Amino acid sequence: MRVTLCDVGPRDGLQNEPDVVAPEVRAELVNRLAGAGLPRIEAASFVRAERVPQMAAPEEVVAAIERRDGTEYAGLVLNVKGYERLRATALDRVNCTLAATESFNRRNGNMSLEEATEQAESILAASELPTTATISVAFGCPFEGRVDPGRVFELCERLETRELVLADTIGIATPTQVKRLVERVSILGAEVGVHLHNTRNTGFANAYAALEAGATLFDASVGGLGGCPYAPKATGNIATEDLVYLLEGEGVETGVDLEALVGVSQWLEGLLGRRLEGYVYRAGVWPA
Amino acid sequence: MRVTLCDVGPRDGLQNEPDVVAPEVRAELVNRLAGAGLPRIEAASFVRAERVPQMAAPEEVVAAIERRDGTEYAGLVLNVKGYERLRATALDRVNCTLAATESFNRRNGNMSLEEATEQAESILAASELPTTATISVAFGCPFEGRVDPGRVFELCERLETRELVLADTIGIATPTQVKRLVERVSILGAEVGVHLHNTRNTGFANAYAALEAGATLFDASVGGLGGCPYAPKATGNIATEDLVYLLEGEGVETGVDLEALVGVSQWLEGLLGRRLEGYVYRAGVWPA
Repeated sequence: MRVTLCDVGPRDGLQNEPDVVAPEVRAELVNRLAGAGLPRIEAASFVRAERVPQMAAPEEVVAAIERRDGTEYAGLVLNVKGYERLRATALDRVNCTLAATESFNRRNGNMSLEEATEQAESILAASELPTTATISVAFGCPFEGRVDPGRVFELCERLETRELVLADTIGIATPTQVKRLVERVSILGAEVGVHLHNTRNTGFANAYAALEAGATLFDASVGGLGGCPYAPKATGNIATEDLVYLLEGEGVETGVDLEALVGVSQWLEGLLGRRLEGYVYRAGVWPA
Repeated sequence: MRVTLCDVGPRDGLQNEPDVVAPEVRAELVNRLAGAGLPRIEAASFVRAERVPQMAAPEEVVAAIERRDGTEYAGLVLNVKGYERLRATALDRVNCTLAATESFNRRNGNMSLEEATEQAESILAASELPTTATISVAFGCPFEGRVDPGRVFELCERLETRELVLADTIGIATPTQVKRLVERVSILGAEVGVHLHNTRNTGFANAYAALEAGATLFDASVGGLGGCPYAPKATGNIATEDLVYLLEGEGVETGVDLEALVGVSQWLEGLLGRRLEGYVYRAGVWPA
């Protein structure tokens, strides 16, 4: 069995660092991740720099990427304008993101749920690049509480794409919720993935449940970087290297060189000057 | 569905703190955990004080416990001498622990595997108290590498007890390994449990897998304290409050008051003067 891992550290990770990391350093992170064999990397986000200064100048990040065969480079967009900016770069894939709730779309993208959905529909219909659609706060919203799975399903039904990713943006889901939503959305025929935060230590159990339910796409961020500027306390995506350790133990192929990926977290720890949330890079791969 | 949680923080947690915590403070931790509704607490360890100074004077800890109805107070022993000391206290349950490998028994208990097994057999046969038998390094050993599940099963077959707990002492297991061993050992007819460390971030996924496999006993430590002095880098049991959050999400009853338990971790953070590994006590229970 094989799954596709997408490292979102350069995007979801670094956008939540208190300090702005320069475009060339963000590109260096992307290049190091590619060097560790990541099949996909979310390299940049095409959002307004005044709203998310950490993600400013995505064009400069992309320009500094040293492309590696076997790695697909993706970017995140929230609207048609973002898509047009992405389209002018050398990126390979569009991750079109919208939230499952009215309030989160307004805070995150300054649009109503209906507007965000229409923007997504337009992008997915027009895109000349392969697309992924990610549904943020698919399990719970910091402003509206629990999210009805039926509502997420109906949203997914409207999206013409070959990849649907369900995001637990604020890290509140538990395994059976994840399993059921993955199974339900799988009926639509797209590949289904999960984007999990480990805010309450359920992230890896949720990843395992998603795997059991047939998910084939997994977002994670090197070292467990991450969060969301509009989701209070949404600390950390699941750490990519820890997910790779778990998946290898399950006999799932990822194509990632785990030791090399641990090296990227060690480099990143030095760069950021703090201990990261990932555990494998500190405890070591086992057996050594 | 209901499971029995045993908080091992006062034992597996505090025995790995660099500083020795005084018996009355260890008892206070036990009392606070009982106040949060823990159905079982591993309050003390009857081992040689010169080997594990953090666990010295278990009799003083037990004497300072303010017993609460509905909580069972357990102690850990490695040999008959430890059992006799425990028996002279007011504790309710004996957790008789031995390791699955020759090397780990020698380092941890200064006995061969055969000697450790014979000690366990004697204690389990003689005990006037309810017993649990815990198999350390049941998945992997820091000295011998991967452990053959058949070997663990044969060891379990020799132990006359109503509770068998499989310990991933060094935190290397992945979910399917846990699921298969729980299922295999369940054939013996005892209740089966797991004692999981989160060293490589697989602990909660392993707990979920154990739950799926029918495990009914779960060790965890408040705040994610823990480790093992003889297992290098065996950082942290799974955090009890994070496990409760996951189990509640799964609809499993634990009897624990999650908000009160979060309060114990907050108190413990102040006591130890450092951030603990648990996440829920920082991120908050959700929905609030």
